[in-house]
Amino acid sequence: MDFTTIKALTFDVFGTVVDWRSSIIREGQDLGRRLGIEADWASVADAWRGRYNPSMERVRSGERGWVKLDQLHRENLLEVLEAQAISGLSEAEIDHFNRAWHRLDPWPDAVPGLSRLKQRYILATLSNGNVALMVNMARHSGLPWDAILGAETARAYKPRPEAYLRSADFLGLEPGQIMMVAAHNGDLIAAGNLGFHTAFIHRPTEYGPNQATDLQPERDYDCVAASLQDLADQLLADC
Amino acid sequence: MDFTTIKALTFDVFGTVVDWRSSIIREGQDLGRRLGIEADWASVADAWRGRYNPSMERVRSGERGWVKLDQLHRENLLEVLEAQAISGLSEAEIDHFNRAWHRLDPWPDAVPGLSRLKQRYILATLSNGNVALMVNMARHSGLPWDAILGAETARAYKPRPEAYLRSADFLGLEPGQIMMVAAHNGDLIAAGNLGFHTAFIHRPTEYGPNQATDLQPERDYDCVAASLQDLADQLLADC
Repeated sequence: MDFTTIKALTFDVFGTVVDWRSSIIREGQDLGRRLGIEADWASVADAWRGRYNPSMERVRSGERGWVKLDQLHRENLLEVLEAQAISGLSEAEIDHFNRAWHRLDPWPDAVPGLSRLKQRYILATLSNGNVALMVNMARHSGLPWDAILGAETARAYKPRPEAYLRSADFLGLEPGQIMMVAAHNGDLIAAGNLGFHTAFIHRPTEYGPNQATDLQPERDYDCVAASLQDLADQLLADC
Repeated sequence: MDFTTIKALTFDVFGTVVDWRSSIIREGQDLGRRLGIEADWASVADAWRGRYNPSMERVRSGERGWVKLDQLHRENLLEVLEAQAISGLSEAEIDHFNRAWHRLDPWPDAVPGLSRLKQRYILATLSNGNVALMVNMARHSGLPWDAILGAETARAYKPRPEAYLRSADFLGLEPGQIMMVAAHNGDLIAAGNLGFHTAFIHRPTEYGPNQATDLQPERDYDCVAASLQDLADQLLADC
């Protein structure tokens, strides 16, 4: 394809840019050591993430009004702690653990890949994470975003069309001038249906060693890449 | 004052961070040379900026619905060109000149001062400029923002309270955790009334050699600085 029409890349972040699962497990282990709590922190991470989409679905459907992801994360965490019989955390400790999502570590290719891509393209988040979460995460790891956009600025959770279309409007661009970058077929299919270009990033261990979803691209995306470095290799090939 | 409660600095941009007047004059001169147009480009710049606030006031008052600053700038430019009998610009040339606001040059202290301040504080725009304008300007000059916030993300032009309060909410902070930085008393008074900390930056030639407004701070702000380097000196003094 002709990549010269593309002015901006918009990124899914959880899973595509950062390794949420390893980071949450590590933060849980730190918390457990500090407080003397025995728990299966991988199970906590998976259960916590498992409640992510259902909790957003209540907002997407209109069953409840707009709430930031930080708040959904906190509600979901309380449910997971109760379900796994983990107790003894103070409110401050719960808040700190909830903000582990602000401190997720990037995949090793993310910062160098994004830094190269930034030389040619506007880079914006298009994440369901709220602005403060994305800002703190970027500062934690040096993610070089030009703009923090997504569900909170659009007041709509992906894959609602408004999340993509309002982000394009903030950038002053048409969907055809933007490439959506994600490790998730659902995200790319939604963006592609609205006219965005699409790039699939392989993240076969995002959900751990037994990952069963998003192992392969399910559509004919414009790019398929093994990492953000590989995406930079492909998009900057004609430099 | 105790600066340790401050987590983020939010910035007025036009005049405070960038020298809009010199930049617009220079772009006008370039345009004039290219098209063989004789005009007083300082007068064009001043007349164009003169229509800025009245055009936003129609949105603030509810007389017209939300429109981005790019659109207001373009409407105002057409009026200025007609009033000054400047003709012969194609639609593409008018668009290009209108986007001179995306290419404004920073004051010499801005990039080094912001880069130092970023080491300790979250830095966000809180400008009436739209997101695309701010993103392009930042890429033009290397302004190291953590987030692009302001009128468009709040859907309210300063000094409406919503512009400040919604920006604080996006950052996940209380007004008392934020310092508004501006060269304009009106902006700082509005922010201060909502609980923001305030820093006045002296920009005595923003409006040219005969500037008559905003030459001095008109309230007892938390900081008064000669430049963004001076602000960094003051805020980082206890490093």
